Amino acid sequence: MGVQDSGSSADNDVDAASSAVDHQEPRAASAGSCQQQQNGRDRPQCEQKQDKEEAPSLTRYPDGSVRLRNPHIQLMDQDILYHLALGSESHDLVSMFGDVKFVCLGGTPKRMEQFAFSIMDEIGHKLPAGTTLLDISRYSYRYSMYKVGPVLAISHGMGIPSVGILLHEVIKLMYHARVRDPIFFRIGTCGGIGIEGGTVVISEDAVDGLLRPTLELPVLGKLLQRPAKLDKKLARELKSLASAEDPYDTVTGRTMCTYDFYEGQGRLDGAFCDYTEADKMHYMTQIHKAGVVNIEMESLSFAALTHHAGIKAAVVCVTLMDRLKNDQVLAPKEVLDEWQSRPQILVSRYIKRYLSMKGRLSLDGPGGSMCVKSPRRFKLVQQESETYD
Amino acid sequence: MGVQDSGSSADNDVDAASSAVDHQEPRAASAGSCQQQQNGRDRPQCEQKQDKEEAPSLTRYPDGSVRLRNPHIQLMDQDILYHLALGSESHDLVSMFGDVKFVCLGGTPKRMEQFAFSIMDEIGHKLPAGTTLLDISRYSYRYSMYKVGPVLAISHGMGIPSVGILLHEVIKLMYHARVRDPIFFRIGTCGGIGIEGGTVVISEDAVDGLLRPTLELPVLGKLLQRPAKLDKKLARELKSLASAEDPYDTVTGRTMCTYDFYEGQGRLDGAFCDYTEADKMHYMTQIHKAGVVNIEMESLSFAALTHHAGIKAAVVCVTLMDRLKNDQVLAPKEVLDEWQSRPQILVSRYIKRYLSMKGRLSLDGPGGSMCVKSPRRFKLVQQESETYD
Repeated sequence: MGVQDSGSSADNDVDAASSAVDHQEPRAASAGSCQQQQNGRDRPQCEQKQDKEEAPSLTRYPDGSVRLRNPHIQLMDQDILYHLALGSESHDLVSMFGDVKFVCLGGTPKRMEQFAFSIMDEIGHKLPAGTTLLDISRYSYRYSMYKVGPVLAISHGMGIPSVGILLHEVIKLMYHARVRDPIFFRIGTCGGIGIEGGTVVISEDAVDGLLRPTLELPVLGKLLQRPAKLDKKLARELKSLASAEDPYDTVTGRTMCTYDFYEGQGRLDGAFCDYTEADKMHYMTQIHKAGVVNIEMESLSFAALTHHAGIKAAVVCVTLMDRLKNDQVLAPKEVLDEWQSRPQILVSRYIKRYLSMKGRLSLDGPGGSMCVKSPRRFKLVQQESETYD
Repeated sequence: MGVQDSGSSADNDVDAASSAVDHQEPRAASAGSCQQQQNGRDRPQCEQKQDKEEAPSLTRYPDGSVRLRNPHIQLMDQDILYHLALGSESHDLVSMFGDVKFVCLGGTPKRMEQFAFSIMDEIGHKLPAGTTLLDISRYSYRYSMYKVGPVLAISHGMGIPSVGILLHEVIKLMYHARVRDPIFFRIGTCGGIGIEGGTVVISEDAVDGLLRPTLELPVLGKLLQRPAKLDKKLARELKSLASAEDPYDTVTGRTMCTYDFYEGQGRLDGAFCDYTEADKMHYMTQIHKAGVVNIEMESLSFAALTHHAGIKAAVVCVTLMDRLKNDQVLAPKEVLDEWQSRPQILVSRYIKRYLSMKGRLSLDGPGGSMCVKSPRRFKLVQQESETYD
């Protein structure tokens, strides 16, 4: 039976220094709002205020934990995060997720599983002996979610609607789990414009296919527009973590986000194409001049929804080709695999540095659920073991 | 090495009666277009004609096989269907897919795998002993694709961009495999409006969140609009296959397709909500009056892209709740599982009837890769076998 009022049982000390308010005390509403006890929860319920972007009181409780811009959630008996296979009253979300600091989203389940195991090594996170990572959302058959200490790694599928559903539910998860000041990353792939394949791009902002920096969405029959803003400081910090020794470039720039991979990105190789190669090149040159350095399919929603929730967020993608040269993904699989690790490496450096500054990094060897004393002998034992029938 | 000129090696006799033209003869262009030999292919290359909706010469060769509305594809050395992990020169697509007649798309890999096994039983399709179905697109980590004789079952993920990418590549697959007059189905889930959970809805047409019957997409900086039309005759045929003995209703009506599951569908339980329950109910009542009976997230693209390709298509979804009553999916898993089989059952009936009329149905027992003579003894042998260590 779920989330309780009596404080967090989770190891939420990652950012503990940032808040003097204990989870056991009712959180004070910061904008003169009404107090209402509901469902055993201590969250104050507030009238809908006028929408002020980035007003922290709308998106944070005084202790820094995530507050929802939706007064209805508190009135619900339970909140089922349907596409994550989690629920506010079926799962103890504070215990499970209260210690999360970083939420990393990427396209495929496989890529995010790989990232989870790699970040486990990077931050030296240890699992109990005889355990391994498990896909927390495996019963949803939609997204895959892995948790490695303070890091969540979740696949978001393809396109704005898919990442949008996920973000609604992950932001609600942050709220239910009382996570304080989480940082979200999208780690992905993209087409580059005027930069060669394998380049890492940190998005400065996101625009749609008409170069508008807003996510437009019909809501109750009217077009709602939300600015697609990313955290500029976070982007600069990530850029500063690119190493001169990386055998590839890391650049910043504007990211175009489209609703289609073929016609929507001016490709010539879709099932349909009504334009010429000259038309395409003219358009590519035009958007390049407008500062667009890469094109993908999720950043607009990712930026708009995290910004609206007051969550620091960054988009880091690797280019799979230069769209000024070709449309198809032609690099061999091993090359693509190595390229796809590059955004992960950059984000890992950020997470590692952050945890190191907080004194949370285990520096005594790699993570996982095996305690390896001697790698050489460890390998010998494995090999010996395999030879017995 | 790939697709060859010398005709189809595939068992493409499903619809053979519909065409007198042999695949070994060059196909004549039907609209006074230029002939051009390219890449060893016999397809005539055509100048871009004025876009006439449903003009069959634009979307079909004289033998009924799928023709692309994209003159560039024929000029390419190879066409990589990146998100399907297939290629025109790496795979013999005619041999692999030339006998396809039905393409069934649905949300999750698991649901489509289940559908593949169930349709195998329904149509009595036999696999060689000691074999089972394999996910053809397993190396893409994006979509899952299963083939059961003339039926392809593919997962499409969530939302318009995800199903759009898939449709571009599946329509190109139909072209490369020289499939004649394929029929596409989307088998999905949705929210109902004014109808109870578990009702099967066959879409008459699809509209967006502003009730417009068009897919709008920015292409090269301009808004392209494509009518989201579905095949009315196919919808009627499907409706006629609903049985009076089905313990649920099967209805037809207008389907609203949105870019978001929460605010985009007027839900009160997203991470954000700026409207009241009264606002929501007013909107739901409004769209109900406009003929909308269900809301989902893929039909607009599915209808627009299949229509533009001249492909007969239908959308059959089961409602998971009545949105006039609630927003969350509350039915227990077993109930949801049974509901989700309902659209599959209706589409199975259509496929079965079609194949039966063509004399292609194996009526001697279920399909699969086991030849069962006596189900009772078959089970006994399995049980015996399991008891030995």
